[in-house]
Amino acid sequence: MSKAFSFEILASEGNARVGRLITPHGVIETPVFMPVGTQGTVKAMIHRLLEEIGVQVILSNTYHLYLRPGVEVIELAGGLHSFIGWQKPILTDSGGFQVFSLSRRRTKDNRSGVRVLEEGVEFRDHLSGSLHFFTPEKVIDMQEVFGSDFIMPLDECVEYPTTYTYAQASVERTLRWLDRSIKHKKREDQALFGIVQGAFFEDLRRYSAMATVERDLFGYAIGGLSVGEPKEIMYAMVEVVCEYLPWQKPRYLMGVGMPEDLVECVARGIDMFDCVAPTRMARTGTLFTSQGKINITNEIYKKDFSPVDEECNCYTCRNFTKAYLRHLYKADEISAYILGTVHNLSFYHKLMKDIRTAIKEGRFESLRRSWTV
Amino acid sequence: MSKAFSFEILASEGNARVGRLITPHGVIETPVFMPVGTQGTVKAMIHRLLEEIGVQVILSNTYHLYLRPGVEVIELAGGLHSFIGWQKPILTDSGGFQVFSLSRRRTKDNRSGVRVLEEGVEFRDHLSGSLHFFTPEKVIDMQEVFGSDFIMPLDECVEYPTTYTYAQASVERTLRWLDRSIKHKKREDQALFGIVQGAFFEDLRRYSAMATVERDLFGYAIGGLSVGEPKEIMYAMVEVVCEYLPWQKPRYLMGVGMPEDLVECVARGIDMFDCVAPTRMARTGTLFTSQGKINITNEIYKKDFSPVDEECNCYTCRNFTKAYLRHLYKADEISAYILGTVHNLSFYHKLMKDIRTAIKEGRFESLRRSWTV
Repeated sequence: MSKAFSFEILASEGNARVGRLITPHGVIETPVFMPVGTQGTVKAMIHRLLEEIGVQVILSNTYHLYLRPGVEVIELAGGLHSFIGWQKPILTDSGGFQVFSLSRRRTKDNRSGVRVLEEGVEFRDHLSGSLHFFTPEKVIDMQEVFGSDFIMPLDECVEYPTTYTYAQASVERTLRWLDRSIKHKKREDQALFGIVQGAFFEDLRRYSAMATVERDLFGYAIGGLSVGEPKEIMYAMVEVVCEYLPWQKPRYLMGVGMPEDLVECVARGIDMFDCVAPTRMARTGTLFTSQGKINITNEIYKKDFSPVDEECNCYTCRNFTKAYLRHLYKADEISAYILGTVHNLSFYHKLMKDIRTAIKEGRFESLRRSWTV
Repeated sequence: MSKAFSFEILASEGNARVGRLITPHGVIETPVFMPVGTQGTVKAMIHRLLEEIGVQVILSNTYHLYLRPGVEVIELAGGLHSFIGWQKPILTDSGGFQVFSLSRRRTKDNRSGVRVLEEGVEFRDHLSGSLHFFTPEKVIDMQEVFGSDFIMPLDECVEYPTTYTYAQASVERTLRWLDRSIKHKKREDQALFGIVQGAFFEDLRRYSAMATVERDLFGYAIGGLSVGEPKEIMYAMVEVVCEYLPWQKPRYLMGVGMPEDLVECVARGIDMFDCVAPTRMARTGTLFTSQGKINITNEIYKKDFSPVDEECNCYTCRNFTKAYLRHLYKADEISAYILGTVHNLSFYHKLMKDIRTAIKEGRFESLRRSWTV
């Protein structure tokens, strides 16, 4: 990997850290929340609104881009940054999570939807039901075409709950797939993360962490969490894994989470997060505020001419009232989804900024307590 | 009416004019196209994007706002500008067009959907099917609550085709309703337009124009056109009416139109237009370009990495390719509708600006010819 990538820890408090992550497409201050742009766009957003909020990096899904518009179109466009017109960093996932979650939905019998072989994974897509086969090599190839800054190796996400035996076999297979991914990777201007799996078994998580770290990657991701388990178990798994990850490397908790999860997992040493929560919830009218979540479509907001959050400085809160937003949602206007998403992403952005400042100033534990009362 | 309103003609070429329309919420350069913000928002837009495009004035629909959020909410908010957070001029219609078009859809027998009485019009709304009654006085009252800059009197829009006898009776009723509207109007900071009707009968249009002008209003609108008739008939009616409208007053052609209609009707003396075409068509992927309309979802754009219109300087064309836009539309992403609408409204805005410049420079007939080849 080229010198285009580096990670430096600037401050810490307990296990919580503030870092500077340098990529070929710019610098990222961590801890960072990455909005999800599944199909090459963050839903209900346009890039300039993301930029104004201060979004530093977005995530895109390899599985979805592979299906639509297809790898060839992105290759002809000169890569994903060029195709979607976003010049800041991009992280792409391996498609593994979608293969297992979206494909499994199609049938009651898991095995008929997805077949996990040593070579790779066979699945039917959620759009047309056609058969596809992803190998670790193919997943690297696709992401090398995309040119995303951060790339992920194919891994298996087991369901919750699962058996120890299955989880153990899966961890071993994910490690073999990681080795094939490392071997296959050619581009120097992309950073490959290793993904720690192990379901909800502490010793498997520990083993997976140690074995993944042995491969000496740029950063480490924690996968397979936030799949329906109680929050305490998720936090416990993050804590176990982080103990075995090298302090000086970035750590990415995949698919997490709600604001309190971000605070709790930063406390355990996580630097990077992604989650559909702020964008998806915005589209159903659930908005985050300094006083907790509200559903803006509620009748009580019909004549409420105050902003969603008095403490928020986003475009939505500076210019519009709850009553107007409620009207837009009730009337099913697209502007409702835009304004709601601007607000929720701004809320997440401000939270991460507050977390970084608090760590730098040694006030993080105090901030954390304000979230756990 | 207060001195807050004035209209000055700055230049003309034939019947085409460039004017400056002063309102309590700012100055409007005419000829102007007013995007439609039916429910207090232009569809798939947020206000700041409209402002960046250069939108000078928006239209909102009294019928829709009356149904949702209801007049009381807008009154409590302190008026429509305040409720929707838009500080530039707003024109509201009378609801007449929607009463006749949306309510009629509900039944095959026109009379069962809408009952036109001397007192006003009884109709069932298109949302719940409840019964409502609009009178000229009620329509003025609602718009006085809204505080829109330009307000319209209740009028009857007859269908195309219709009988002479019905159209004649309707013109007379619309004039009686106009007199009641003038008498009922109280606010000094709003400009009431008279609406010329008369279906597709030249003598009725002439009569309606002369009788409406006798009422000496701030401006004159032409209603009941673009309802399914051939374009030549529409243009002919506009031409007949404009001959009878005072040169020094603004003229507004309601619900028109496509770009070529704007050019042809400016040529006949129109100053103001509104139409759902650019916004509605954007949502189905039909985009206007200097080379004609295209449907961006077409397969031929799958690998087309050029902008929608090389001559367009809008946010969409400056940053995104046809291939990316096509992908967003095919994937049904909200960003497709936002970016498409930004482009179409920018196209309309540039057209009107080009028209104004051409008239000032005596090149309007040349611009017009470029649209009619």
